[in-house]
Amino acid sequence: MAPKPTLERLSTEAFIAGVKFDAGGLVPAVAQDADDGRVLMLAWMNDESLRRTLTSREVTYWSRSRTNLWRKGESSGHTQHLVEAWLDCDGDTILLKVKQNGPACHTGAPTCFFRRME
Amino acid sequence: MAPKPTLERLSTEAFIAGVKFDAGGLVPAVAQDADDGRVLMLAWMNDESLRRTLTSREVTYWSRSRTNLWRKGESSGHTQHLVEAWLDCDGDTILLKVKQNGPACHTGAPTCFFRRME
Repeated sequence: MAPKPTLERLSTEAFIAGVKFDAGGLVPAVAQDADDGRVLMLAWMNDESLRRTLTSREVTYWSRSRTNLWRKGESSGHTQHLVEAWLDCDGDTILLKVKQNGPACHTGAPTCFFRRME
Repeated sequence: MAPKPTLERLSTEAFIAGVKFDAGGLVPAVAQDADDGRVLMLAWMNDESLRRTLTSREVTYWSRSRTNLWRKGESSGHTQHLVEAWLDCDGDTILLKVKQNGPACHTGAPTCFFRRME
């Protein structure tokens, strides 16, 4: 059996180069609270939003409904500050550990995941 | 300001009815380790894989590359047992808290997210 991969460290450029955007030029990004590990939301990034996020550390997504760049919290003030960025094994998903300022969800809930199957 | 939503509890059928599948009939599912909170992977589900997951509690995805149902661990033995299923505010992402049996990643890594930007 192949040895388990250990942590791999990537430069910003290597990280961006490793992302496999989908046919629409987007990649899903999962935001996780860096403090308590809670999964906050999933949103989408294009190349430009990814670059802005990694360089400015202010998390910026691509809004598929409004078709524009969307700096999280730009209207609500509920920003996400990037703490760590992780890329998955095949490069088609990003995991962002963030410092969440206020609630993550537009409903006012701390996380977008507040509906549970019983 | 509207009151914050509290926890909403959904039956299995209400959960499935609440999912907004994309144009290809798929929804992204984020798997998180129920014990340590680590985000393990993101994969995709169609209606059938979601139903199987919620009723059998053995996590089953839809493989976009092989275009078939894929019970996680069916060949490797590294199964995922569903502990909790959560739906996000707008119904287009699922969060699965799972009991992961062995490594989650096909590389042998505990999680698919082992590459970090420095």
